[in-house]
Amino acid sequence: MKSEIVKIGKVQIGGGLPVVIQSMTDTHTSDIGATVQQCIELYDAGAEMVRMTINDEASAKAVPEIRKILDAKGYNDIALIGDFHFNGHILLNKYPLLTKSIDKYRINPANEKSFEEFIRIAIENDKVVRIGLNKGSFDGDIVKAILQYAEKAEKTGLKRNKIVLSLKSSDAVDFIKDHERLSEEMKKNKKIYALHIGLTEAGTGIQGIVSSSVATGILLQKGIGDTIRVSITPGKNESRTKEVEVCKNILQTLGLRNFGPHITSCPGCGRTNKKYFQEMVEKINDHAKKYKNAKDLHLAVMGCVVNGPGECKKADIAIMLPGDQEKQTAQVYIKGKLTNSLNGKNILKEFLEILDKTLQIR
Amino acid sequence: MKSEIVKIGKVQIGGGLPVVIQSMTDTHTSDIGATVQQCIELYDAGAEMVRMTINDEASAKAVPEIRKILDAKGYNDIALIGDFHFNGHILLNKYPLLTKSIDKYRINPANEKSFEEFIRIAIENDKVVRIGLNKGSFDGDIVKAILQYAEKAEKTGLKRNKIVLSLKSSDAVDFIKDHERLSEEMKKNKKIYALHIGLTEAGTGIQGIVSSSVATGILLQKGIGDTIRVSITPGKNESRTKEVEVCKNILQTLGLRNFGPHITSCPGCGRTNKKYFQEMVEKINDHAKKYKNAKDLHLAVMGCVVNGPGECKKADIAIMLPGDQEKQTAQVYIKGKLTNSLNGKNILKEFLEILDKTLQIR
Repeated sequence: MKSEIVKIGKVQIGGGLPVVIQSMTDTHTSDIGATVQQCIELYDAGAEMVRMTINDEASAKAVPEIRKILDAKGYNDIALIGDFHFNGHILLNKYPLLTKSIDKYRINPANEKSFEEFIRIAIENDKVVRIGLNKGSFDGDIVKAILQYAEKAEKTGLKRNKIVLSLKSSDAVDFIKDHERLSEEMKKNKKIYALHIGLTEAGTGIQGIVSSSVATGILLQKGIGDTIRVSITPGKNESRTKEVEVCKNILQTLGLRNFGPHITSCPGCGRTNKKYFQEMVEKINDHAKKYKNAKDLHLAVMGCVVNGPGECKKADIAIMLPGDQEKQTAQVYIKGKLTNSLNGKNILKEFLEILDKTLQIR
Repeated sequence: MKSEIVKIGKVQIGGGLPVVIQSMTDTHTSDIGATVQQCIELYDAGAEMVRMTINDEASAKAVPEIRKILDAKGYNDIALIGDFHFNGHILLNKYPLLTKSIDKYRINPANEKSFEEFIRIAIENDKVVRIGLNKGSFDGDIVKAILQYAEKAEKTGLKRNKIVLSLKSSDAVDFIKDHERLSEEMKKNKKIYALHIGLTEAGTGIQGIVSSSVATGILLQKGIGDTIRVSITPGKNESRTKEVEVCKNILQTLGLRNFGPHITSCPGCGRTNKKYFQEMVEKINDHAKKYKNAKDLHLAVMGCVVNGPGECKKADIAIMLPGDQEKQTAQVYIKGKLTNSLNGKNILKEFLEILDKTLQIR
């Protein structure tokens, strides 16, 4: 059973459509220049929807400007979402330009007393609402509560194809269980809402990436989730777009969407010359960035004869480097066929030339 | 239904025991010093079993020495696994010290003609065998084939509690489907073997971490897998132990094992002072490394009042920083109770002191 399709600006989610990636800015929304720039960075990285906090009058006034500048720069595809807490209905009532300029309103009913008024504003403006509960701000049965809020929104007059639900938790085990229950309840009630999923407050570094990937991946593999967000804390000098990269890799791993070359490469072991092999993998990965629009391209870089031939045959273009004990010849495969044997110091250069030629890139 | 418990040196896997982490060296095994050092690094990072390639006479001679040095250094808990391809039975027959010094033999039946002879050597030496097929070196129905090899090993006389199976693939979708089928077949046949799981050749960077986490996480959540390995290509200047960190985070995310403080932290948004917040998170993460033995410790660092109080109450010790529009006071929670309000420039220092005092670490 599928949800209805929910249209958010020019983006559509639900109804079995490909899972959409979204992100959220961490600039002050009132800083129009910085926020426009980050919206563009996030969109260019792969986020089709961008959310921003609208927490005060300055940000409420800035958002219509942000939309205008994005449109002028040709970024009218980006769906903009306003994140409201505590004072959402006040700001939306007071700033009609704001109310019109965003495509979806996010409300956390636990942090907003005027739920029905908020919903009515969305109905009047023909906008989508994400009703999102978060275990960090809600005690009680979150699954039951979210469905009650959805029911209440529908009774107030919001159509089901204008509703997205989310249940967030920072604990992956709770997160998975809650969504499994929500999914079952929706099927039982025969009322399927589009779902925004994402482990929240996943933290930094490897922990943030792994926990987000495990939690989101498990739900998506069960068919749960229409749009995803990864909530990791960026490290110093890390770009906000890292969370979008994680999203893309989750979807690509599960074969749900492709976003650029996938490069199969082995971890190396005692059979390989570690330094030489790692350097080759790194340089081929760097070079492959120029093919970022070749969304389905599959390359392979293998370190020895153990699994080399099999993996190379499965890739579009591949190179099998020789293990230490093997004849020092690298073998190139194109579409499953051994096409070239390379020797000497120019193996990398020659392979990259073959790659470029095969992909017919000037 | 559970497998029998398989004893590999001093490590036990299967039978519903906690999932064991393993890794593989990428030094030349014949380089005794480098290999000993890497075994220790991997073990100290969390790998309870370490595999190494044994591909030639020099490495076959080195392994007993490696075992001896590890034991002398007090690392007799590390289970050592020999990875054989093509010439395993020859080396095991020729070097009886090798044969005795390792705890498990890994054979890839697709790369080894003398399967039964290999199994007989294991039986004579009372050793465990991992029978591992890899889609990179095997064509055909890998699930059917692995069960036939297991059957053949049992018929040759190897007990079921001496067998570990693995099915590797670099494609996560295949990997998940194959294991689901394998798990069903084993239940149907009422012959449950211990399973080593791991997406193979997962590549570098974010792709490597995400694809490994998604694939392994999905299986573990279904109860499939008794020991895991993550096969990522290390980047330049990255430690081999990164794959062990990924393993630990996968298990911790799913609540299967705890390996040190978990720090919940939000991604920050327009409500927070980005630079200040990210720096606080980073410094608290760094400081928490000194509590690496506090395996179940749960900290939280939250950026504002939206989900701050709820998340802070769930953690053992937590700090909620003020959002920009809030009163500039940070609130400290211990075991769910608000205990301190911090102000001014020394918030971080004072919080770390509270942390140290609470954890009673000198």
